[in-house]
Amino acid sequence: MVSTWEEFFAKHPPPQDLTQTESLLKSFSDRHLKENNKVVLITSGGTMIPLEHNTVRFVDNFSAGSRGSASAEYFLENGYAVIFMYRLKSLEPFTRHFIGHKILDMLNITENADKCIVTVAPEHTDKVAMVLRKYKETLQQNKLIQISFNTLTEYLWLLRTACQALACLKDKALLYLAAAVSDFYVPFDEMSVHKISSNGPPTISLQLVPKMLEPLVNLWVPQAFVISFKLETDQNVLVSKARTALNKYKHNLVIANMLQTRKQQVIIVSKENDYILSLTNEQMEKGEEIEKFIVTDIILKHKNFSKIR
Amino acid sequence: MVSTWEEFFAKHPPPQDLTQTESLLKSFSDRHLKENNKVVLITSGGTMIPLEHNTVRFVDNFSAGSRGSASAEYFLENGYAVIFMYRLKSLEPFTRHFIGHKILDMLNITENADKCIVTVAPEHTDKVAMVLRKYKETLQQNKLIQISFNTLTEYLWLLRTACQALACLKDKALLYLAAAVSDFYVPFDEMSVHKISSNGPPTISLQLVPKMLEPLVNLWVPQAFVISFKLETDQNVLVSKARTALNKYKHNLVIANMLQTRKQQVIIVSKENDYILSLTNEQMEKGEEIEKFIVTDIILKHKNFSKIR
Repeated sequence: MVSTWEEFFAKHPPPQDLTQTESLLKSFSDRHLKENNKVVLITSGGTMIPLEHNTVRFVDNFSAGSRGSASAEYFLENGYAVIFMYRLKSLEPFTRHFIGHKILDMLNITENADKCIVTVAPEHTDKVAMVLRKYKETLQQNKLIQISFNTLTEYLWLLRTACQALACLKDKALLYLAAAVSDFYVPFDEMSVHKISSNGPPTISLQLVPKMLEPLVNLWVPQAFVISFKLETDQNVLVSKARTALNKYKHNLVIANMLQTRKQQVIIVSKENDYILSLTNEQMEKGEEIEKFIVTDIILKHKNFSKIR
Repeated sequence: MVSTWEEFFAKHPPPQDLTQTESLLKSFSDRHLKENNKVVLITSGGTMIPLEHNTVRFVDNFSAGSRGSASAEYFLENGYAVIFMYRLKSLEPFTRHFIGHKILDMLNITENADKCIVTVAPEHTDKVAMVLRKYKETLQQNKLIQISFNTLTEYLWLLRTACQALACLKDKALLYLAAAVSDFYVPFDEMSVHKISSNGPPTISLQLVPKMLEPLVNLWVPQAFVISFKLETDQNVLVSKARTALNKYKHNLVIANMLQTRKQQVIIVSKENDYILSLTNEQMEKGEEIEKFIVTDIILKHKNFSKIR
């Protein structure tokens, strides 16, 4: 039996610092409303489904956060203020360019007499400086806040809170729901308290997560432009599933993508039509990102949407 | 029914680049055998259990890789060569000090006429330079190789391959099995090909993973000093479970820790006795790491082990 979204929130306690996050989100929205800025809420990364209250094991969704973190940078470049709601340890805007060993391999130590200086090696300076300038500018303009989650429950509480904070922006709010949210969960009261013993192989019974797009579109942020994502591994069901979601929830756009080709191609599905956005192999090799084209396309749609209303 | 370790390897194909990794590991072991160095294999991070062949969903184990990555640095400081086998995107030695925004916040841009220089801010130079020096020295001395895995299957194939490569080092080899390896898995031939549909809530049936410590200790690397880890959330079963493992597999040491206090306290369990290693709150505040004390303790035990044999 699927519980309703009201039952889900009644049964699963909110994250401890939700009140703090709520005021942060409200003051961010208020400021950008006054400054007449558009604001996008980007969700990014996968959600964790704990199998135990003292969590050792969990079910997770594949998502590095590439789509969300890259898109955040392009929205910022286009003047949007960004609320970046991301899974802890998934990719983040700006720092995503320096993961792994890359940054240590770029640094040189120079020691003069009693002074030690650490610099970025000349061959990397241009790239690092470019990202760093954008990062510092964003901070200075107060255009980005980042809010992290781990579990599905945290994600859903934060999503609702962020939507409610954004409602005052009306059609200036854009929702870009790129996080890979689990369809399933283990209810709070059915979870094991301690680490599941390995004496016998367990069977995990999952329940369906209530669809939050419905209250989101109808109640929480009813005037916003809302985009959801659909990831599949089977090409044959991709567009039909995207269209089914669109018909059901009546939001504005679904961006459909295949796991295998998601960095090169997406399908933009609206009520009116669907079309492919893709990068050529040449563009891929030059390091261009499909998120740049997705964001450009969406910003145009968001503009038209605001005109019509 | 639990399958044997032979059945597991027969049923689950090896990672594609295993042959390459194998020669890398062999030449690393051979070189350090000639140079009379001790070599530690550190496993670190959690293992992923895919629920689909085209993996969107997976069961995972909680592990950031803090224990393994910190320990690697202390083994290197003590002259060991290190094979660091880690879950992709978990913490790595040296870079672990610069995760998140930290590194971007440490950098300054200076622009003089036509030249742009990016430097680490003076207040951070000492710390960055200290880590950077150790990192560069390690690279130069060829004392560290890093091998990454994602799934349980990849982990087990790599573990066996690394052990077989290390066998030539006899009692100079140390195994420090800190990875959080899943006890359960979904067999290759029972996995769904595509993303599990969310039409109905699924039930995931997990099987027990065969215990690899047995062939590891008896066949793959029989003369090495072998340390396993035991993580629990229930204090009452911790030491007894550690001791049960020790009696069953006849390896050298279990390091037992509680999820909640693992950064401050561990229990060293050997055939002879068990005792606590812990940090005072003062040490915690100063940023000292318990891994420093664990590694010092183990190196002494490893030395005595080599003497006796």
